[in-house]
Amino acid sequence: MRNIKLVMEYKGTNYHGFQRQPNLPTIQGELEKTLSQILQENIVVKSAGRTDAGVHALHQVINFRTRSQIPLLRLQRSLNSLLPRDIAVKEAEEVDESFDARRNATSREYKYFIMNKDHPSPFFAEFSHFIASSLDIDAMQEAAKLFLGTHDFTAFCVQSDIPKNPVRTIFEISCKKVHHDLLCIKIKADSFLHKMVRTIVGTLIRVGLGNLTPEQVAEIMEKKDRDRAGPTVPAKGLFLSNICYD
Amino acid sequence: MRNIKLVMEYKGTNYHGFQRQPNLPTIQGELEKTLSQILQENIVVKSAGRTDAGVHALHQVINFRTRSQIPLLRLQRSLNSLLPRDIAVKEAEEVDESFDARRNATSREYKYFIMNKDHPSPFFAEFSHFIASSLDIDAMQEAAKLFLGTHDFTAFCVQSDIPKNPVRTIFEISCKKVHHDLLCIKIKADSFLHKMVRTIVGTLIRVGLGNLTPEQVAEIMEKKDRDRAGPTVPAKGLFLSNICYD
Repeated sequence: MRNIKLVMEYKGTNYHGFQRQPNLPTIQGELEKTLSQILQENIVVKSAGRTDAGVHALHQVINFRTRSQIPLLRLQRSLNSLLPRDIAVKEAEEVDESFDARRNATSREYKYFIMNKDHPSPFFAEFSHFIASSLDIDAMQEAAKLFLGTHDFTAFCVQSDIPKNPVRTIFEISCKKVHHDLLCIKIKADSFLHKMVRTIVGTLIRVGLGNLTPEQVAEIMEKKDRDRAGPTVPAKGLFLSNICYD
Repeated sequence: MRNIKLVMEYKGTNYHGFQRQPNLPTIQGELEKTLSQILQENIVVKSAGRTDAGVHALHQVINFRTRSQIPLLRLQRSLNSLLPRDIAVKEAEEVDESFDARRNATSREYKYFIMNKDHPSPFFAEFSHFIASSLDIDAMQEAAKLFLGTHDFTAFCVQSDIPKNPVRTIFEISCKKVHHDLLCIKIKADSFLHKMVRTIVGTLIRVGLGNLTPEQVAEIMEKKDRDRAGPTVPAKGLFLSNICYD
């Protein structure tokens, strides 16, 4: 059996997330259907990260096993011509049989885009969260640094879905203007709790609006106080942007 | 009567062009409906350029007359909150009663985006024309220069819609890579014939693919030979990007 790794990008707007669900359009569903059709085998894929409904990916990694001897370039081209226009395969590679896109991933990186100006942009509406009030980016960056390192992130995830071990390690976090009025919050961690990125971003926005101080953010984290953390911001601003393997 | 000028941007994907049409969604229709609602008057707008169905605008200028004394900032905010998410007002200004967005415009600028790589991008699919075959940008730029200046553009417009005077002046034209695999063709002219930008771009793409030489392009222009010019490329890659007034 060959083990094939694919690097993908997709616009999540029209999908109920990555994970296959009966009778709902999902990235995994579209991908497995198209792979099975091309390879004439029943294909099941594993992904490095399960993106939620509406979340996009600039760099998602998946792998699957197949008996097919199809050349990789032909596989990639067939996928790109048969997949819906909002899903694309950037790279296809044959990897060691032990490679597992999820288990071998040592870190995941997400980017969250905020359009911060007086009117929403028609072109970024599907790809960013619009905030008309001016944000204090320096304060947001200062608060962001508090998340660096190993912490219990119970205050920053879906409360009905807290895992046994809610400790995660954030390797990198930054908050900066990337283009005119477009702000990008980038977070890289070993892995993430459910909706952790979007809750951290919601909390940083509260800081940017002057409704929370960096000190209060540290307190919220320490006291595991979900109620005082910020709201979960909309999925449409979130992009899975990288997966690292050692 | 006050004369109000608005600078707008819109994503044309879901509209049948700028110009009002009965029972079809258009930019003018949405704008006039919303202005009339806010100002409680029957408002008719004039635009600097009538964009076709599916064409976007980064900078469209319109003007209209009103008896209302509404402050400009309140007007702009009301428009941005009531207009659909894919139409936005960037600026609102009170201008001299003689100002006419169309007649006073001395030049219009359009940008056409081409995604030139081996697979289409899910994020640029609505905003660019995808070409998988490698394009020779230097040859395209060389051919583009032939369009500079004053010419009869009969070969580069809709043949059922050639005006009495098909002579136009191109002030600027360029073809360059603006970001990774994204190519931008920018054209600034006094005004344009119907689908002139998209036919020029289609012709430049033929040059980029090696199917036409710059010399042949000059010949096509001189002989007014629409049949040998390139195809009209899709609307989705086209953006009205600026309007100049002296």
